[in-house]
Amino acid sequence: MALDQKILDELEKVVGKDRISTSPAVLYTYGFDSSIYHHDPEVVVQPISTEEVSEIMKIAYKYEIPVTPRGAGTGLCGAAVPIKGGIVVAMQKMNKIRNISVKDLWVDVEAGCVYNDLNNELAKYGFFFPPSPGSAEACQVGGMVSTNASGMRAVKYGATRDFVLGLTFVRANGDIVRAGTRTIKDSSGYQLARLMCGSEGTLGIITEITFKITTKPKKSASCLCAFNSVVDAGECISAIIAKPLIPASCELMDRISIDAVNKARGNPLPDVNALIIVEVDGETDEIIQRDLKIVEEVAKSQKAVSVTPSFDAKEIAKWTDARKSVLASLSVLKPGYVSVSLADDMGVPVSKVPQAVEFFQKTAEKYNVTIATYGHASDGNLHTKMVLDPTKKDEWERGFGAVNEIFAKCIELGGTVTGEHGVGISKALNFQDERKSEIEVIKAIKAAFDPKNILNPGKAEQWTGTPLRDLRYPCPEFQ
Amino acid sequence: MALDQKILDELEKVVGKDRISTSPAVLYTYGFDSSIYHHDPEVVVQPISTEEVSEIMKIAYKYEIPVTPRGAGTGLCGAAVPIKGGIVVAMQKMNKIRNISVKDLWVDVEAGCVYNDLNNELAKYGFFFPPSPGSAEACQVGGMVSTNASGMRAVKYGATRDFVLGLTFVRANGDIVRAGTRTIKDSSGYQLARLMCGSEGTLGIITEITFKITTKPKKSASCLCAFNSVVDAGECISAIIAKPLIPASCELMDRISIDAVNKARGNPLPDVNALIIVEVDGETDEIIQRDLKIVEEVAKSQKAVSVTPSFDAKEIAKWTDARKSVLASLSVLKPGYVSVSLADDMGVPVSKVPQAVEFFQKTAEKYNVTIATYGHASDGNLHTKMVLDPTKKDEWERGFGAVNEIFAKCIELGGTVTGEHGVGISKALNFQDERKSEIEVIKAIKAAFDPKNILNPGKAEQWTGTPLRDLRYPCPEFQ
Repeated sequence: MALDQKILDELEKVVGKDRISTSPAVLYTYGFDSSIYHHDPEVVVQPISTEEVSEIMKIAYKYEIPVTPRGAGTGLCGAAVPIKGGIVVAMQKMNKIRNISVKDLWVDVEAGCVYNDLNNELAKYGFFFPPSPGSAEACQVGGMVSTNASGMRAVKYGATRDFVLGLTFVRANGDIVRAGTRTIKDSSGYQLARLMCGSEGTLGIITEITFKITTKPKKSASCLCAFNSVVDAGECISAIIAKPLIPASCELMDRISIDAVNKARGNPLPDVNALIIVEVDGETDEIIQRDLKIVEEVAKSQKAVSVTPSFDAKEIAKWTDARKSVLASLSVLKPGYVSVSLADDMGVPVSKVPQAVEFFQKTAEKYNVTIATYGHASDGNLHTKMVLDPTKKDEWERGFGAVNEIFAKCIELGGTVTGEHGVGISKALNFQDERKSEIEVIKAIKAAFDPKNILNPGKAEQWTGTPLRDLRYPCPEFQ
Repeated sequence: MALDQKILDELEKVVGKDRISTSPAVLYTYGFDSSIYHHDPEVVVQPISTEEVSEIMKIAYKYEIPVTPRGAGTGLCGAAVPIKGGIVVAMQKMNKIRNISVKDLWVDVEAGCVYNDLNNELAKYGFFFPPSPGSAEACQVGGMVSTNASGMRAVKYGATRDFVLGLTFVRANGDIVRAGTRTIKDSSGYQLARLMCGSEGTLGIITEITFKITTKPKKSASCLCAFNSVVDAGECISAIIAKPLIPASCELMDRISIDAVNKARGNPLPDVNALIIVEVDGETDEIIQRDLKIVEEVAKSQKAVSVTPSFDAKEIAKWTDARKSVLASLSVLKPGYVSVSLADDMGVPVSKVPQAVEFFQKTAEKYNVTIATYGHASDGNLHTKMVLDPTKKDEWERGFGAVNEIFAKCIELGGTVTGEHGVGISKALNFQDERKSEIEVIKAIKAAFDPKNILNPGKAEQWTGTPLRDLRYPCPEFQ
């Protein structure tokens, strides 16, 4: 359904003709993110200011048109897919770093700024914004706030929500709200800036953010520990934390992930059933030596089959690159198969990691599907990817059978269906299972912010369809 | 206005006769917190479970009775004062630590647990919950969440909001909601647990909380730096942070605060115009020596008149105790005078501290009032206390004249009227000035959560009266 030309004319008046498009190729491109879903919008606009976003929202509000804000499209759950069509507000032209105030420990930045670009600037002053998502090179900070994204370093440094001091957002009716402060602390009065974290564009369009920044530790080192099983690996992680030692990061990989990377990248990793890469950081060599020694000792007492500490940046980079290449490597594991994000991002209490990963493996066997398990295990955040033939309905159905059991198990273990990727479309129904007692309040908040339901409609608590629709893959049986 | 006996009977049925009171002495006691305000409730109840709180709220909802939840009553702004009467729900009997799960990096605790009690238990495992408010020995964690409290260590470790993973709260209608997770991270779906931080009982009654915990650094040391002016002291703090060095804490005291403490406590501090006590912490002696050296060098280059580094726990405790005794010392500064919390808790960007404290001093002169300035200056959180004769209307009026200018200045400097104490009654009007663009959204959220307006009514955005009423002090001219 195309939008009325009158509406398109009004939108063009706001952004000018170079920053609006209804070309089929553009609409198709902006109908994706990195999830399994696809749905074309009717128009794509690229604002360059909060005021333009406000004008766009006034038009959308007047004509009751769905609006989906979009960062870099690196999200894995469909939060940026305009599932009800309408307007995509693409933020990439609002990418300025407005003010780095190291004396005040904050930075003011536009929502479309790329995460790595921000950190490259902060590094000049000895500071950083820690969350480090896997998509660091491409993802935009506005998308990070919208999904409360994090990454490898969250166990020690926190997620995006922990760094948001204030932000500017545009309401459904076009009103501009500045929420929170530009001070390190503020006390009472509803933490609106924090509420916007993880709201996936359903409460307003975030246009500018004030992030707290912190100093970057001067030293780091890593230890690669190999195990005969992911269960042993999971138990080792719990033992390290109980020591107590909070690592800077701790990445887990199972047999399938290791094999995929070794095959695609020329064997950067040992040929083992499971491994963890534990990173420690701190201010001096003495500390990282001490902490790495603790990691070594715990791993040896926890059934590690090999323990390789390293202070060599080159060797560590080889491990880190290997870990980061899991997703891409899984996609080339079998010809004709793709790796898809279904149950991609569970969080469980850290001590439940062994039980969870054991369950994932058994469930994969039960449904005869290939599931790779990896992730940020020291904060209990487990990623799985399913490798399947996307043209076969049967593979999707078995896959969904497995993921629904996996989600239910993680909820039973006291966990969550999403640690860092978001809810979007793919986890909407499972999220509703997890947050039964929250749903009524969530709906009340949504109604208070967006009475006409135009802000990224059809997501999270609003999703009522079967998850097997609007797939981006050519599966004839679904057409 | 007494509550109908029928309602009291229903409440007594929930909590039993030992945990309900309408005795005038009890009502009087629960009509205070540590602010300047006082208003009696009609009844005080002390629930021992979330289910009892739920039953209490169902009764309040049915009869539309105001309900004010109360922690230890250490709040300085009136958030726990039942300004509209009704029911006070006193949480002190819900004080259990339910589960310390160090392997999972969290603790489950009831809202009435005292902050220090929690940290004493966590210390056994090498962990802590860092915010450290000044009222640590008495304040309850539920109150800390309700005001998003913090304290000396927030610049390095964050405020309460940064440690709330999940919580249980009871809605206006009695529904019990479990919000958030028991995982270190969770991603999308509205951060309800964070929204409850700082909501001061206006959205629901918090009954249980899951806090993230972290490891306690093994070493710390401090440096006392003296200056000829608070402006010089403030500039030194900015220079330390820009180095970059984020201290564990950095406490500022001005001439009046120093004099008050020296008079009341036998001169624990040097006789100077201003001082800062900078604490550094870390894992090894080497680090704290290195960081203390940086502090010394910066202070010397920033007009410090004396610089005293110390690794001696006894000497440091003397300084810390002196700083902590400011509030009590000011109360005995002049016979017949009291120290009151008016503009007690501003936050400004750290680099604006010198400008702010200079303005405070000039404003005190202009209005001929005594204002002491101190606080957690490395996160820009400045406390002031006014020393006045509470029986004199004129003193109150000059005091309010000064604080309104101070609040306006802090907002102008990009700051906030409350860094850690909350809004309550005393800052409600100034808060509305600060958050102009937020107010409509705040009201929409309040209406969505509390349609009958029974949850701590008359606070924050709802306060419309003049601040000079319901004072706890006997000022005949106000009667």
